[in-house]
Amino acid sequence: MSIAAAARVGDPVAATATPALVVDLDALERNIERMAAFARQHRMRLRPHAKTHKCAEIARRQVAAGAVGVCVQKTSEALALAGAGVGDIYVSNEVIDEARLRELAALAGRVKLSIAVDSALGVDRLATALKAAGTSADVYVEVDVGHGRCGVAPAAAVALAHQVVSHGLRFAGLQAYHGRAQHLRTPAERESAIRHAVSLARAAQASVTSAGIACPLVTGAGTGTFVLEAASGLYGELQAGSYVFMDRDYADNHATPHAPVFEHALFLKSQVMSAGSSHVVVDAGHKSHAIDSGLPRVHGHDVEFVNGGDEHGILRKRGSAPLPALGETVWLIPGHCDPTVNLHEHYIAVRGGLEAGRVEAVWPIEARGCIR
Amino acid sequence: MSIAAAARVGDPVAATATPALVVDLDALERNIERMAAFARQHRMRLRPHAKTHKCAEIARRQVAAGAVGVCVQKTSEALALAGAGVGDIYVSNEVIDEARLRELAALAGRVKLSIAVDSALGVDRLATALKAAGTSADVYVEVDVGHGRCGVAPAAAVALAHQVVSHGLRFAGLQAYHGRAQHLRTPAERESAIRHAVSLARAAQASVTSAGIACPLVTGAGTGTFVLEAASGLYGELQAGSYVFMDRDYADNHATPHAPVFEHALFLKSQVMSAGSSHVVVDAGHKSHAIDSGLPRVHGHDVEFVNGGDEHGILRKRGSAPLPALGETVWLIPGHCDPTVNLHEHYIAVRGGLEAGRVEAVWPIEARGCIR
Repeated sequence: MSIAAAARVGDPVAATATPALVVDLDALERNIERMAAFARQHRMRLRPHAKTHKCAEIARRQVAAGAVGVCVQKTSEALALAGAGVGDIYVSNEVIDEARLRELAALAGRVKLSIAVDSALGVDRLATALKAAGTSADVYVEVDVGHGRCGVAPAAAVALAHQVVSHGLRFAGLQAYHGRAQHLRTPAERESAIRHAVSLARAAQASVTSAGIACPLVTGAGTGTFVLEAASGLYGELQAGSYVFMDRDYADNHATPHAPVFEHALFLKSQVMSAGSSHVVVDAGHKSHAIDSGLPRVHGHDVEFVNGGDEHGILRKRGSAPLPALGETVWLIPGHCDPTVNLHEHYIAVRGGLEAGRVEAVWPIEARGCIR
Repeated sequence: MSIAAAARVGDPVAATATPALVVDLDALERNIERMAAFARQHRMRLRPHAKTHKCAEIARRQVAAGAVGVCVQKTSEALALAGAGVGDIYVSNEVIDEARLRELAALAGRVKLSIAVDSALGVDRLATALKAAGTSADVYVEVDVGHGRCGVAPAAAVALAHQVVSHGLRFAGLQAYHGRAQHLRTPAERESAIRHAVSLARAAQASVTSAGIACPLVTGAGTGTFVLEAASGLYGELQAGSYVFMDRDYADNHATPHAPVFEHALFLKSQVMSAGSSHVVVDAGHKSHAIDSGLPRVHGHDVEFVNGGDEHGILRKRGSAPLPALGETVWLIPGHCDPTVNLHEHYIAVRGGLEAGRVEAVWPIEARGCIR
């Protein structure tokens, strides 16, 4: 069940089989450095979310640029990245399953591990697993700051923090991430959402500290809003992930003034496999690129991408520009990078651009498919 | 990068880690037999589409029940299933890439191979690859019968059939599949679409045969319409695939009178990982189940499933029924089976039902991720 990579190191980019996920290394490196520089300038910790790239090599590059470690969402992602050498991992999500907690507790003996909680049952089970393994982990209490998904209300954070401490675990602070705010299109909408999120996180922090429990850190933020969390004075750590690649959905946001600018670094190489009179069909459908956040954008061609199903993409004329020819390469910018990456086994990492460049590396996507 | 299966043979179903793809073997076997019986009764060939299940074991069971072989969409799917012992494979899709065609031509020396074409360039490249490999394949000319994706207009089929024959290849007939018709909700809409498809396929067949080229077979149809293609008298082979599993989207179709009834046989086992006052969150988002055809249905709970992103599903109350508790198992019926299967490495095949059953087998999904 192992899948061959779409190109070999040294190949011209043009030799890459389609469909394949291609990383523009020059753009990736600029993105990594720009976010690292932002965190340095704001004296904040950067812990990029590895759910975006799922790849140890990119995690190592982020850490080399200054990140303290990475976030993941799933136990199996943590195991996969730890197995590939990533040494500081925060599971920024709740784990309730006892078998998964035993895996994490064992992992905590090999890497610096942190985890989020939002229930008494979750804290109890985590404490039991860590005690049995004889290991320790940093514990963050998640506060729902507006997303309406996981996390407790601000007033309930103190009880969980108490419980964490009473089990002899280290209460490391608050997880305060507002996912839905990331893709609100205008800066004013995002600013309003994060102002509200900050007020909720501040209330949770106040209730914890007034109970005599130190709250060392508030962690959160994503690529759409990190400038706002940084300006709040409350957050000490940024979790943005998508900035490494930038997808079509993030590019559709109206830019926040004075925010660092990130470039598209992730592309899907596809090829025209059928040509009609009014449309052509490429060999990449939503088995190659996730469409939960909308369709991909066609790079370098003024044509419309229409959903053609699991294995096909339909390109229609938008203006007078000709459609690409049968067999021609078509580059797509995925609608949403994280679940697109999850569909692939490798990155084809190219240097010198998509047209004339060469394959510098082929990186395994170690945490691809790690859903548990 | 290999992912451990979520359960072991002999485990109670309850021991299956979440999220995981679970097959109800009793329902699967009834579905396989019902479609096989339909094809027998109508004296038609059945060549189920393996893009649904991507699994050699299920393909073998379909063949054991009477299918002539399977369809796939991609070269790499054909290679993966052939490598696992499937011996008669039809790539019901165009392949234009010369490297892929070389792989298929080599494969044609090991299995009975068929392939679709819809361009002169495609026929030329296929002929070149087969000639170089010294192998042969059945060639179907695809006609666009209403989907508006791949395939030529009916009048153009004869030129391609001529070209196939002139290269010394075997012209095996016409590929005439109307994908969009499958999910038209009412029988009247589907009947209208397939009546039109049949008229176009018949016109193509007439133009080919009146040019003195025998047209041995018209192949097509899906789970939403196969009763109609069977009734047409034109089609000789059915390609339906989703019937083995049935997804929420197909179940939302209003049933065709007198059509065989298929049962849900594919489920996603998930677990409540966070519980709020007005909603709970399960550990399965669209990294575990495809949402291109809409959200999953919650099985056995009268609650609403709300998209919670890549790793989460949000359940909200619909009526007075209580929400499932923290840690409780929640079974989801995927919105669309094919791309959901593509997200997983294994099927956990259970006997005796989802609640009290046992794991009878763990099947690898050999063609998972085979996008090229």
